[in-house]
Amino acid sequence: MNEQEKIETFRQFTDFNDSELKIIMSYFEPKKFKKKTKLLDIGKVSNEVFYLIKGCIRLYCEKDGEELSTYFFTENMFAGSYDSFLSRKPSKVAIETLEECQVLVLTHKGQEKLYEIFPKMNEFIRKAIEQRFILLHDLFISYLLNSPEERYLMLLKDRPELLQRIPQHQIASFLGVTRVSLSRIRNRLAKK
Amino acid sequence: MNEQEKIETFRQFTDFNDSELKIIMSYFEPKKFKKKTKLLDIGKVSNEVFYLIKGCIRLYCEKDGEELSTYFFTENMFAGSYDSFLSRKPSKVAIETLEECQVLVLTHKGQEKLYEIFPKMNEFIRKAIEQRFILLHDLFISYLLNSPEERYLMLLKDRPELLQRIPQHQIASFLGVTRVSLSRIRNRLAKK
Repeated sequence: MNEQEKIETFRQFTDFNDSELKIIMSYFEPKKFKKKTKLLDIGKVSNEVFYLIKGCIRLYCEKDGEELSTYFFTENMFAGSYDSFLSRKPSKVAIETLEECQVLVLTHKGQEKLYEIFPKMNEFIRKAIEQRFILLHDLFISYLLNSPEERYLMLLKDRPELLQRIPQHQIASFLGVTRVSLSRIRNRLAKK
Repeated sequence: MNEQEKIETFRQFTDFNDSELKIIMSYFEPKKFKKKTKLLDIGKVSNEVFYLIKGCIRLYCEKDGEELSTYFFTENMFAGSYDSFLSRKPSKVAIETLEECQVLVLTHKGQEKLYEIFPKMNEFIRKAIEQRFILLHDLFISYLLNSPEERYLMLLKDRPELLQRIPQHQIASFLGVTRVSLSRIRNRLAKK
């Protein structure tokens, strides 16, 4: 990804001009991570968000020693433990790469600085956090209203590529079922 | 609540000056609603958010004809079906007053207009939506990790006044248990 492509990526929410975008981009540090890199432990305060250029990152919490995946981020999403990044409290979720990842890292200090330099960043981040809020609300309501099979079908419809990229046991934990139950769901649907 | 008190309420997130705040407040229409007023039906697009001066408002979704309470708003909170208000898609939750309410209503058009007049509104709303995101994330994680009894104890610790103000069956549906189970939880804890 060259400088221009990087910049275009950030135009989606706001009308920053080229020179503004260059300064903004200077606060986003390009990094690469290997597959299965832990980016944040549960209980630590999150100081970084990761704009995903390539790869896949998951959030998970732990219950009785089991990992429960709570979200999967892919290309062009801001991955992170937002609640901790925003509240400055210990994170309830861990962050881990599921594939080799190419990211742009923005630190909390960097973000604060950007708000000072460019008040327009407030609009950019407002729109980004509104999108995250909508996704989280959809997820929360689907936990309340839908069966694991229905949620599997929603995943298949909304983010089919995830089912190819992510290990089955992590899809299962995201749906709140065992790996065996997920296989049963898939078999049942295959016969329909 | 007089004009000055109304204005102070809105200073918490930003540094608007008095004349700016007067214009902003002119977009918030004071209204009163009786107890048990439906403010939004499931399936409708939400066009209003309600800043609560006095009273209590709940969100709920429906499953198999049963109402599941998903959130309770009280004084000094922005109550609303944010996901629909932001995404302009049909709401998955309904909005209802649980007590006689005194509110300031901001319409979606009013909000858009305020962004135009005062770009600083982006900072205000960014901070408000960040707070909502954190609350929703806490709620989501507690559904995944905690038992109904643990969630009852969290409610008792964080928002004890809710347990006095809200009917037991709605507290039960918020915790994801029956009214009978909630009574058992309360009895068990009373004996400790």
